[in-house]
Amino acid sequence: MVGVNRESSMHTVLGFGKGASREFTDRVAVEEPVEIRILYPENGEYTSVAVTTLMRTPGDDFELAAGFLYTEGIVDSYDLIADINYCVGENASQEFNIINVTVTSTEDVHFHNVDRNFYVSSGCGVCGTKTIEGLRAKYERVAPLEFDETYPALGQELISALPNKVREMQSLFNVTGGVHAAGLFDAQGTLIEVREDVGRHNAVDKIIGSQLRRYKLPLQHNILVVSSRASYDIVQKAKSALVPVIVAVGAPSSLAIDLSQQYGLTLIGFARGDSFNVYSGHQRIRYT
Amino acid sequence: MVGVNRESSMHTVLGFGKGASREFTDRVAVEEPVEIRILYPENGEYTSVAVTTLMRTPGDDFELAAGFLYTEGIVDSYDLIADINYCVGENASQEFNIINVTVTSTEDVHFHNVDRNFYVSSGCGVCGTKTIEGLRAKYERVAPLEFDETYPALGQELISALPNKVREMQSLFNVTGGVHAAGLFDAQGTLIEVREDVGRHNAVDKIIGSQLRRYKLPLQHNILVVSSRASYDIVQKAKSALVPVIVAVGAPSSLAIDLSQQYGLTLIGFARGDSFNVYSGHQRIRYT
Repeated sequence: MVGVNRESSMHTVLGFGKGASREFTDRVAVEEPVEIRILYPENGEYTSVAVTTLMRTPGDDFELAAGFLYTEGIVDSYDLIADINYCVGENASQEFNIINVTVTSTEDVHFHNVDRNFYVSSGCGVCGTKTIEGLRAKYERVAPLEFDETYPALGQELISALPNKVREMQSLFNVTGGVHAAGLFDAQGTLIEVREDVGRHNAVDKIIGSQLRRYKLPLQHNILVVSSRASYDIVQKAKSALVPVIVAVGAPSSLAIDLSQQYGLTLIGFARGDSFNVYSGHQRIRYT
Repeated sequence: MVGVNRESSMHTVLGFGKGASREFTDRVAVEEPVEIRILYPENGEYTSVAVTTLMRTPGDDFELAAGFLYTEGIVDSYDLIADINYCVGENASQEFNIINVTVTSTEDVHFHNVDRNFYVSSGCGVCGTKTIEGLRAKYERVAPLEFDETYPALGQELISALPNKVREMQSLFNVTGGVHAAGLFDAQGTLIEVREDVGRHNAVDKIIGSQLRRYKLPLQHNILVVSSRASYDIVQKAKSALVPVIVAVGAPSSLAIDLSQQYGLTLIGFARGDSFNVYSGHQRIRYT
């Protein structure tokens, strides 16, 4: 966390209800652009390449940067990253909104996955491929996850308990009512960490970036829980870190199901109360 | 509507609940990429430029294309558009996923707002500007909406009734439980139209594109309702069509509030039951 004050801001609100109105001060989740740059050594100097600009909630920015570079296939290993820091001094108003990721060399940076600078809003996580066929080729190249016999079959009670465990840790949601969350669990249902963001894909990148920075990848013994719907980008990011099980509180999209089946992932949706639906990979679920 | 069958697809699901499991067939909202291209005449032939690829729910594709080009500031008038059609024949598997928008001339197409091909996921609507400062410059150039004295002050009951009127028309949500909606109303609270999509910004673009194609823009006597949170991109798109009032079922982001205040828009959030919060532009609300 960079600071609680950067994640939410205070606004004067006119609240209406039951025929009356009153003015009060409310906390709102911050949405701000952040630009991620890669700095690399060249002829004794550092050259900078802007990789993306995301709309995100400030906080865990370095995890977000590392996670984004990993899940988008630009950086495969944290060993490649020498330093992550804010770019300060260039523009005072944006000094916490530009992140420099310094790499040790460009040799292993997959710049072909950075076609250009591009904007990604708080709901977006697919940017980066040139055409539909490029997008298709990108996911068709990915080999399916092999089923790991040592992964314990998940019981119904264990799965049903996960969303509430995430919800209980959502400190920003509690004060704003307006952010998504991603939670990482081990296969016994023990919570490892929760991250929040106005963008659901950012919350996932913050989780994966945090694990990457602690050399915990791949996450093949884990469960990823998202408070949102499960769309294409969530499945793609989970697969990049080899998380075999995704549990979404909301609905899956058709593409999320198709990809999960192709990737060999377990995709669970509508996980609410004691019920949920399994759309893919039911071999990891224990049922009678 | 292109066809109900393209908006949702059938999937075999293993449903769990109350200690039991059962297999059933469920409808899921389709998420598919669509590429929007501009075709323009040049030396007696047509040249094609790929503008964007969006992750969207098929249906109302031509409205989506027209709306996107308008709200992103690429095309200012429907008069400029000679034709909108699917690009068929090139690739059979994608024949309904490439849309050609033929313009009469390039003179009035703002290609500077199309920096490159870029991907926009089902949750994204900000793509297209090069740096944070570019993004800031883009919205700081926009003149605030002048307060229209003829716009009737909206009563509390009128506002509270809007989300349910949208919800009742959500045919795709009813069968899938997993799509966003945008609804357009007149200032008396009469529903004009509803559009659905896995991406909240796409639902807004479909609405604005539909109105554009019927020469109904600007929408300065209307109300835009979104089933989702209100983030930066929703406000930016509403402002492009001069809709003065946005009602969101979910929370607003800090940037959505800041922009609404700067643009002179009325921004309402957490519109649930008979209560809602006004974050900006309360002069359009009637209250005691």
